[in-house]
Amino acid sequence: MGILKGMRVVEGSAFVAIPLAGMTLAQMGADVIRFDRLEGGLDHTRWPVTRDGQSLFWAGLNKGKRSIAIDMKHPRGREIITEIICAPGEDAGLFLTNLAVRGWLDHPTLSTRRADLVMVTLLGDRHGRPAVDYTVNPSVGFPDATGPEGSTDPVAHVLPAWDCIAGNMAVSALLAAERHRLRTGQGQAVQIALKDVAAAMLGNLGIIGEVAVNGVDRPKGGNALYGAYGQDFVCADGERVMVIGLTERQWQGLVRVTGTGEAMAALEAELGVSLNDEGARWLNRARITAILAPWFAAHRVAEFGDAFDKSGVTWSVFRSFARALREDPDLSAGNPLFAEIEQPGIGRYPVPGSPFAFSAAEREAPVSAPLLGQHTEEILADVARLPGGEIARLFDEGIVRGA
Amino acid sequence: MGILKGMRVVEGSAFVAIPLAGMTLAQMGADVIRFDRLEGGLDHTRWPVTRDGQSLFWAGLNKGKRSIAIDMKHPRGREIITEIICAPGEDAGLFLTNLAVRGWLDHPTLSTRRADLVMVTLLGDRHGRPAVDYTVNPSVGFPDATGPEGSTDPVAHVLPAWDCIAGNMAVSALLAAERHRLRTGQGQAVQIALKDVAAAMLGNLGIIGEVAVNGVDRPKGGNALYGAYGQDFVCADGERVMVIGLTERQWQGLVRVTGTGEAMAALEAELGVSLNDEGARWLNRARITAILAPWFAAHRVAEFGDAFDKSGVTWSVFRSFARALREDPDLSAGNPLFAEIEQPGIGRYPVPGSPFAFSAAEREAPVSAPLLGQHTEEILADVARLPGGEIARLFDEGIVRGA
Repeated sequence: MGILKGMRVVEGSAFVAIPLAGMTLAQMGADVIRFDRLEGGLDHTRWPVTRDGQSLFWAGLNKGKRSIAIDMKHPRGREIITEIICAPGEDAGLFLTNLAVRGWLDHPTLSTRRADLVMVTLLGDRHGRPAVDYTVNPSVGFPDATGPEGSTDPVAHVLPAWDCIAGNMAVSALLAAERHRLRTGQGQAVQIALKDVAAAMLGNLGIIGEVAVNGVDRPKGGNALYGAYGQDFVCADGERVMVIGLTERQWQGLVRVTGTGEAMAALEAELGVSLNDEGARWLNRARITAILAPWFAAHRVAEFGDAFDKSGVTWSVFRSFARALREDPDLSAGNPLFAEIEQPGIGRYPVPGSPFAFSAAEREAPVSAPLLGQHTEEILADVARLPGGEIARLFDEGIVRGA
Repeated sequence: MGILKGMRVVEGSAFVAIPLAGMTLAQMGADVIRFDRLEGGLDHTRWPVTRDGQSLFWAGLNKGKRSIAIDMKHPRGREIITEIICAPGEDAGLFLTNLAVRGWLDHPTLSTRRADLVMVTLLGDRHGRPAVDYTVNPSVGFPDATGPEGSTDPVAHVLPAWDCIAGNMAVSALLAAERHRLRTGQGQAVQIALKDVAAAMLGNLGIIGEVAVNGVDRPKGGNALYGAYGQDFVCADGERVMVIGLTERQWQGLVRVTGTGEAMAALEAELGVSLNDEGARWLNRARITAILAPWFAAHRVAEFGDAFDKSGVTWSVFRSFARALREDPDLSAGNPLFAEIEQPGIGRYPVPGSPFAFSAAEREAPVSAPLLGQHTEEILADVARLPGGEIARLFDEGIVRGA
């Protein structure tokens, strides 16, 4: 029932970005076939894993796909993968990969078999050198600008943000290229380099301009929201909250509910600035925080949460992952994004579906990931269109395997 | 010449996600019209700003768009924006927004004017409550899991990762919905909640499973790569490097180049594990680091960089933003992603274009952002199709303004 129903995408991948791209398409209704070597790809046992060594990571990033496991060192295995990628169908011939295999799996070779193939490749850097989220991030400067003010220790992020961004960009690239093909009949190769994704974002967010135009190398700002007002506070109940005064409305709501209007006015008079100006809030954030901190230290979250919500203050409690799962109804099956489902080999736990809500399609319930090789037989029959006898031989000879 | 040439998208937005979405489409060749109130949107002076108060942030996130400035408190202003959003054209009628304006600017109202309108809305949370990147992130748990091992202080990210992810998801949603419209004629409303984006990713990355199945609340791990081996080291020249041993190939290359094979074998014998197993590397990372740290402390980057590259070790130096700009050719006009261009009101500096390389379209050179209202007159003429006399009156009456 998904919005992309009828589309078929083949994915040769590992780790976060391209598996996320394929999954995003699958969760919009595309038939996404992930192929892997017989023992599973490089991410098949990626942590976190269960006590039995089953990868929760792999289960998380391959939901809703079909899986085929095949020996790609064997010429027949390579031939079959080529057939699957280049299989006929107006809405097929779409290939997503980060494997960067030259020769049999590259665009020049594959497009001799299907001229209108659309192939989206994620590279490490634009030179084709390896790079991963955890090397791209320090290379462009984020860890150096992260963490407590005054500290000189870089802090790396835990969320592989560049992978998550690049994966979603791969989805856009594939849809844009397929749109072009629908109109012109023309296939193509699309390349995206993970490092270029980070480099572009550095410019998009104004950070390159800040260096090149202002001559400023942004220092660490702790948990403060850069350029306006946003700060974390510890409350009377020991809770830590993040409070945002990015817009004038948020700022004025914060001042009103905390009853700090007079103190802020006195600060404005002393400094000769208006704190309705976001830059003035940023430059004087330490003074503002000194006014607000005693208020938070004297109040419990239960006392002010509703008033904050009603006054347009944007805020949140800091939680650990486990606490977020335990307390937040948005992270439970109470949110239609989630369902408690059985993941084969792992068990039942809350699994997210697609965050997209398309009004023209039913929201699809979350579905589990396949086991490695779970769909090998049906893909060989339905997509590669091999006769039953040949499929049986491929299993017998160990060129393919099932789950 | 872009791959989306001919498509027209209207954007009513502020801040990161939706401006990024519109810009991404513009950089693929779409005609993207951003409309703003006369004084500019909530992000018009967002930091970083130049010494003159010109926003480098706004310039960064609105490149390649056309800008119209209009009084939306005035009924005529609202009517004109409605006309622009719903203007005819097979490849038009596409609207991206995070404004969440009920009434004149919502999907039910707009679709009375153009039944096949595709409208993509980014919400804060699924209930329609405000949420920003900087509140979503602590609410789902990342800052609690970020920073030095053993510390209890949460560390917020500097990159607004959820906004960057959600913006790219909005691009995918728009392209998927437009694809559906091409095939069925049917328009629709698509909603994405920023908090759901984060909640889904928590599941996708296996973190929900880690809590729900394993009963583990992931602690801070410093700069270590979770679940395999990856660590930062300080070298003899004072440089800090990030070194990755995620795959077996990376790990073995690292051991080989550092000449630590014997020490690692002794450690394996002592512990009774194989360090070719990624989980064993993770669990014993402190022991591994104790072996590697003296080697890095005794070597300069210039001594080992080439050998690391040749041996398949994935690594990077930690840099500040300014140093990255100064040293890294990938962040300069030497990379076709960038060009030194003149941004009106700001000056010349390196500006990124699109990280996508489509083989079926020329790579477009980076272009600057418009000034607020720079295209007001031409949009009123070409898109709203107003006669010249009426356009002049709108300017005279202050209902619209130019740059």
